[in-house]
Amino acid sequence: MANSEGNKLWGGRFVGNTDPIMEKFNASIAYDQRMWDADIRGSKAYVKALEKAELVTTEEMNSILHGMEQISEEWAKGAFVVKPGDEDIHTANERRLKELIGEPAGKLHTGRSRNDQVGLFTMWWNTVEIDVLFPGYTHMQRAQPIRWSHWILSHAVAVSRDVERLQEIRSRTNVLPLAYDLLMLLLHVNVELEFDGISINSMDATGERDFVAEFLFWASLCLTHLSKMAEDLLLYSTKEFSFIALADAYSTGSSLMPQKKNADSLELIRSKAGRVLGRCAGFMMTIKGLPSSYNKDLQEDKEAMFDCFDTLHGALRVTTGVMSTLKINRPVMEAALSPDMLATDLAYYLVRKGLPFREAHGLSGRAVFQAESKNVPLNQLTVEDLAAISPLFDRDVAAVWDYSSSVEQYSAPGGTARSSVTAQVQHLRRWLQDHTQ
Amino acid sequence: MANSEGNKLWGGRFVGNTDPIMEKFNASIAYDQRMWDADIRGSKAYVKALEKAELVTTEEMNSILHGMEQISEEWAKGAFVVKPGDEDIHTANERRLKELIGEPAGKLHTGRSRNDQVGLFTMWWNTVEIDVLFPGYTHMQRAQPIRWSHWILSHAVAVSRDVERLQEIRSRTNVLPLAYDLLMLLLHVNVELEFDGISINSMDATGERDFVAEFLFWASLCLTHLSKMAEDLLLYSTKEFSFIALADAYSTGSSLMPQKKNADSLELIRSKAGRVLGRCAGFMMTIKGLPSSYNKDLQEDKEAMFDCFDTLHGALRVTTGVMSTLKINRPVMEAALSPDMLATDLAYYLVRKGLPFREAHGLSGRAVFQAESKNVPLNQLTVEDLAAISPLFDRDVAAVWDYSSSVEQYSAPGGTARSSVTAQVQHLRRWLQDHTQ
Amino acid sequence: MANSEGNKLWGGRFVGNTDPIMEKFNASIAYDQRMWDADIRGSKAYVKALEKAELVTTEEMNSILHGMEQISEEWAKGAFVVKPGDEDIHTANERRLKELIGEPAGKLHTGRSRNDQVGLFTMWWNTVEIDVLFPGYTHMQRAQPIRWSHWILSHAVAVSRDVERLQEIRSRTNVLPLAYDLLMLLLHVNVELEFDGISINSMDATGERDFVAEFLFWASLCLTHLSKMAEDLLLYSTKEFSFIALADAYSTGSSLMPQKKNADSLELIRSKAGRVLGRCAGFMMTIKGLPSSYNKDLQEDKEAMFDCFDTLHGALRVTTGVMSTLKINRPVMEAALSPDMLATDLAYYLVRKGLPFREAHGLSGRAVFQAESKNVPLNQLTVEDLAAISPLFDRDVAAVWDYSSSVEQYSAPGGTARSSVTAQVQHLRRWLQDHTQ
Amino acid sequence: MANSEGNKLWGGRFVGNTDPIMEKFNASIAYDQRMWDADIRGSKAYVKALEKAELVTTEEMNSILHGMEQISEEWAKGAFVVKPGDEDIHTANERRLKELIGEPAGKLHTGRSRNDQVGLFTMWWNTVEIDVLFPGYTHMQRAQPIRWSHWILSHAVAVSRDVERLQEIRSRTNVLPLAYDLLMLLLHVNVELEFDGISINSMDATGERDFVAEFLFWASLCLTHLSKMAEDLLLYSTKEFSFIALADAYSTGSSLMPQKKNADSLELIRSKAGRVLGRCAGFMMTIKGLPSSYNKDLQEDKEAMFDCFDTLHGALRVTTGVMSTLKINRPVMEAALSPDMLATDLAYYLVRKGLPFREAHGLSGRAVFQAESKNVPLNQLTVEDLAAISPLFDRDVAAVWDYSSSVEQYSAPGGTARSSVTAQVQHLRRWLQDHTQ
Repeated sequence: MANSEGNKLWGGRFVGNTDPIMEKFNASIAYDQRMWDADIRGSKAYVKALEKAELVTTEEMNSILHGMEQISEEWAKGAFVVKPGDEDIHTANERRLKELIGEPAGKLHTGRSRNDQVGLFTMWWNTVEIDVLFPGYTHMQRAQPIRWSHWILSHAVAVSRDVERLQEIRSRTNVLPLAYDLLMLLLHVNVELEFDGISINSMDATGERDFVAEFLFWASLCLTHLSKMAEDLLLYSTKEFSFIALADAYSTGSSLMPQKKNADSLELIRSKAGRVLGRCAGFMMTIKGLPSSYNKDLQEDKEAMFDCFDTLHGALRVTTGVMSTLKINRPVMEAALSPDMLATDLAYYLVRKGLPFREAHGLSGRAVFQAESKNVPLNQLTVEDLAAISPLFDRDVAAVWDYSSSVEQYSAPGGTARSSVTAQVQHLRRWLQDHTQ
Repeated sequence: MANSEGNKLWGGRFVGNTDPIMEKFNASIAYDQRMWDADIRGSKAYVKALEKAELVTTEEMNSILHGMEQISEEWAKGAFVVKPGDEDIHTANERRLKELIGEPAGKLHTGRSRNDQVGLFTMWWNTVEIDVLFPGYTHMQRAQPIRWSHWILSHAVAVSRDVERLQEIRSRTNVLPLAYDLLMLLLHVNVELEFDGISINSMDATGERDFVAEFLFWASLCLTHLSKMAEDLLLYSTKEFSFIALADAYSTGSSLMPQKKNADSLELIRSKAGRVLGRCAGFMMTIKGLPSSYNKDLQEDKEAMFDCFDTLHGALRVTTGVMSTLKINRPVMEAALSPDMLATDLAYYLVRKGLPFREAHGLSGRAVFQAESKNVPLNQLTVEDLAAISPLFDRDVAAVWDYSSSVEQYSAPGGTARSSVTAQVQHLRRWLQDHTQ
Repeated sequence: MANSEGNKLWGGRFVGNTDPIMEKFNASIAYDQRMWDADIRGSKAYVKALEKAELVTTEEMNSILHGMEQISEEWAKGAFVVKPGDEDIHTANERRLKELIGEPAGKLHTGRSRNDQVGLFTMWWNTVEIDVLFPGYTHMQRAQPIRWSHWILSHAVAVSRDVERLQEIRSRTNVLPLAYDLLMLLLHVNVELEFDGISINSMDATGERDFVAEFLFWASLCLTHLSKMAEDLLLYSTKEFSFIALADAYSTGSSLMPQKKNADSLELIRSKAGRVLGRCAGFMMTIKGLPSSYNKDLQEDKEAMFDCFDTLHGALRVTTGVMSTLKINRPVMEAALSPDMLATDLAYYLVRKGLPFREAHGLSGRAVFQAESKNVPLNQLTVEDLAAISPLFDRDVAAVWDYSSSVEQYSAPGGTARSSVTAQVQHLRRWLQDHTQ
Repeated sequence: MANSEGNKLWGGRFVGNTDPIMEKFNASIAYDQRMWDADIRGSKAYVKALEKAELVTTEEMNSILHGMEQISEEWAKGAFVVKPGDEDIHTANERRLKELIGEPAGKLHTGRSRNDQVGLFTMWWNTVEIDVLFPGYTHMQRAQPIRWSHWILSHAVAVSRDVERLQEIRSRTNVLPLAYDLLMLLLHVNVELEFDGISINSMDATGERDFVAEFLFWASLCLTHLSKMAEDLLLYSTKEFSFIALADAYSTGSSLMPQKKNADSLELIRSKAGRVLGRCAGFMMTIKGLPSSYNKDLQEDKEAMFDCFDTLHGALRVTTGVMSTLKINRPVMEAALSPDMLATDLAYYLVRKGLPFREAHGLSGRAVFQAESKNVPLNQLTVEDLAAISPLFDRDVAAVWDYSSSVEQYSAPGGTARSSVTAQVQHLRRWLQDHTQ
């Protein structure tokens, strides 16, 4: 056994010996490598913005841009060498840049230590395993079969809305007093910034912090989306569901119970929506009822903003890590599908035979009740059993009991059919290209 | 089938035909009957307080008290007749009181339409089924075996803290301008009120709304406790857990999916913590930065207070209803216990043989890993398998694999042993007597 | 005296005998009349949207559009007759529409009883009195002279941002399940709605309430702007400031103190930011940590949304009423300007003579200290006094003591100079045309 | 002038050259000296608690107690020498303790760097200047004359409620898992701690954070009280009110405007209620809907708690500093009293002559209106003017126009009469003795 008892109290049960929450970035280089292109494009946009803000000279900018192109070629050719100490793609690229151009490489760091939240989501839908079915839930109860890819896409769509919202905020933050320029830079590495507006009224400008409030709320809403995904995954990783298993790098053990493998990373993600909304609510309370123009109360803005930025950034990184490394348990997922989840299809069967849906729904419900009473799965009611409920039931009802057909029924845009899911992936890929150029 | 398709779209699958959320009080008389004594004692205290506040005359009070005693006797003798229209124990008692003493019975209603939140919890631990074991969870992962009664008691303890907190608030609200007396009356039916204080400073008195803020927060905290219990029960009622089944009266169906049985009632309880904390935060924001003395802004207080009162009251009633009527699935609960949940006990086994816990924990973890590798339950590792991990393992390790013994280990106050659980029940019964006299 | 003691306890001191908060709409027709055009354009857009949503027939739409054009002509010609019972411009126009086209007029009411929040702000900058100067404050301390129009514009700019934000939300809410269409209709009467999107992922669509959260936050932020304006006006209407006097219609008296005239209306506006942010925070808390897809918890959305809509709508109406009817006290405002508010100008005087600003600031501060020590206004220090502080001070310093010149210095975009203020008005007029077509 | 232009851009106008917010504790030793006794008593209780928690040995405890007694004697005899570097009373006492007993003195610091919030308020009502009258406000409008001491007491009463609430929380936090003992220690230096309870249910104990939530809310409510006081003082320190002047140590200048003196300290106090309530709301959101027992989400508790503790502690210190050092401007305060503030007294005059209050109020309002019409102060209406309003007015009305008599009318408990105010002071002194033993 390669990796015996580690130096952590809960290490015995784990194959890896890292504390994944504390050392999580050690592990991240594995999935980060696929992101070199986004990182380099981001850095190039960023250094141009820094030059515009006179934080680097034109010469330094050119040197950095040139170095970045070399690194880009190395990655493209497969010649880039990851070294010990390269925590993630960013540190790897920055380390290499320093080797190539020396000191000015450090300038790329100006006002930046966190810069990649948007790009990190780019990988999700590339790994879609489109054929995996599992139960869709409403009210935490099994509802209808869906594709696993459909679940992934539902969260990707939410994040894409978050990115769009961020870009709307950005359009307003350009109309800002100079003091906040640098802060705003941090938020938009994938786009070249233009400061196209000026304040319309000086009195309004000195006393308004709308962009702070908007940013705090934006981060809060984004985190409620992550909390939703985390809650799903926490459910799916219980012993009772067993749909997924987190990588050891995103789990921890218990100092008391040797068998425990806890999805701490997901709990942390879930928790942060509270912290950030709290900051937002607190800031709104602070500005409520202040008179016009500058008041010292407004200095609560920066700490709130930085805390929320850091919190969100961390949550996005960990989410990306969790998603990139989790394993799904396809047999368990598919075994969780049960015939009663096709009761709606059974109703549609009757609708196709001419019944109104309301009536068909009632009869299908009767069938469910009958199956429960006889203690058999719904699809093992005999045709006679069903015919006693409605004479419209016939032998062809057997065709209803097919999960794949069920999923394929929903071929409208946004649906669960293979064609709909593929269209969603294509839509989001296009969207992503539009938003990361 | 007595109750065929009801008049609701989702009625087919349900045996009962009521919409339990909307008509929930129809169903409540069944479990309310056990509460006649608490209700009558509460009403007697209440009418005394009304008399003190000069809202009923002494004569009216005496008439009501006398009527109540008659009703009490009827219940005790089993002679009380529940009639159609008796929504719950309170309306039943009030209807009977009116039959007995006429008009003055209506006075009992003064400023009161919701009055029983505290008393409703009194039944929980009477029905404790002390022998049922099931998995305790931390981080949503199976941890160690516990008793079902231990779980119930953990929530009862939280509620008892809420009641104690409410009584602390009450001690301050007595020092109130007269305008709020009636409002406060609503909160304390089980105790005879004495207005023992007066405002210390007139300027403070006209502008402070501490008791409103405190009440709103108290209700919020109480609702986070209910949200925790609701979340547990929602998990336990998933198909995957299947530990409990809610009564039809507290479930709803789906207008689309005939097989669905949703625990809406629990979702509603879970949701309300947000609404009420929102009111609290909003009120705090409103009062932030107001100058001294009265400002019109303060008139936000009453609507917030009444909304929170009603919301909490509803949530408490529904919670009580859910708890009084749910069925547990003992075989499933016990089948959910698995040998790996005894890994801690395995470590203690080694501790008893002289190892420090840290080392024992590591070795037990190795055993868990070994069992996972061999794909067998932990208790099916052979003594040889275990001895390869540590020579201290011997034949007597077989005694570890007993869930009941495991639970009995924790006999300290607050623990899971039968004696500890019994002590908790006794403690809470005494507490309850102290708080409802 | 036409209107002697009214029937209200606090009526003695008031010339008008209305309770303006309760009966405020009685008074609103006076300022509403100027708004007939916006109202008619809004109603025309609305009825087109109703037709698109199949809530009125094409025939009904045409009938309504035709009637509206007639009313428009009547207003333009001055022929429109306001009748008793016409509470405001909307009820007047609807009453007239019914006279003209009969029953279908009622259809215009579908899902609408509140519709004009945006348009109401249109009047503010028409009445700008550009020459009135008064103290600008920072930290609640007199800072530099500004124009009253500059103050008005600072709030108009904030509101214009609110409108822009609302239109961004609208672009997303079009991608909505049908259930919310009607609700959204309410928000956008000045624009013809097009439902240009569809949900990208069905699972996301059933469980996301981003547009609710966004709307609640939008309303909260808008109300913090109103709270700021209200706080300014509350300060300006204290006896100590006495810059403005509210119309009796927006003031109330005291049932205890006969001399009191309270600006209740402003206190109500100030208070509402708390209520609405509370709803927003509460809703965010409710959705935190919910699993994907529909959960009953989500039904908290509608009540929150309607309450916030109504609250904001009321606050906007009252704000508009207050602003349309308040009187400024120009002599007091101008008398509040004091020579020490020109200390910055005194520093600039030295800068023009060649000193760096830092040094000039220090010397001007010395002059302020000197004036305080001698207990004279800053402009009554003699040239000798000043020369003792810096030899650069000379006779021409006298030109500094002119408030109008001081204000005229700031001629950059957004500044206080007449040209800058005029440009702001023009900018906002253009903006308004762009946003209300 | 001892301290010429300082090294700060805004130093020219200030006589002192300190940045009072950053260096505020430099100044605090002046008012801290009066507090040596409270500090020493607090430290003695604290070291006993440390010993109980086995954080210091019995020997160390005895050594510290002995040293403290010596210091106490030095203060009592006036022999204590404050040295440079003694930032406040605590550092002075600790420095001296180290001189006396050496190393063990450092142990007193264990888990403590902030400990005095409660005691700091003790000085307020010692300096009451009972004869100063000034306007009481409601709705930010002058209402009736009050004593300055009455205003101070209104805030002292609010703080005393806060202390009582803190002690209630403490009674529950004793029933805590050991991990939080140290944290709790920080909150209760003036009392000797006894851990009188144990957790009633182990499952409840590992998952509940009620005491965190309660502490966060307690701090929020306390800060709304401070925000109210700060808002009052900000108003009173405007040029327009000019009732008070803050010490330079609690004011800052402007880097642009040389004449500015901003009450930044009060704005900071006002702002913090938002920050802390935000933490509270955020934490409540984090715990909402968590399942039972421990979940990693709970680790948000400590950072929230420490941030709120530090924030509140800082706000209390600055408040105490501001209050200890502000100067009131008695002539301006008294000049702000105007005869119309006696309109209620004028109504009472008529009541004494037999009119019902409602009618008297109306007639007094008529008098106010009459005075406004004639543009004279209310007390300069002639007896003939008044007699035209009511024949009950006679020569003896002249006695009404006396502010001192007006204030003396309210001699009920909590009122503004000298006897009532004196009783309030006595009540609070007794309360303080009871709470700091």
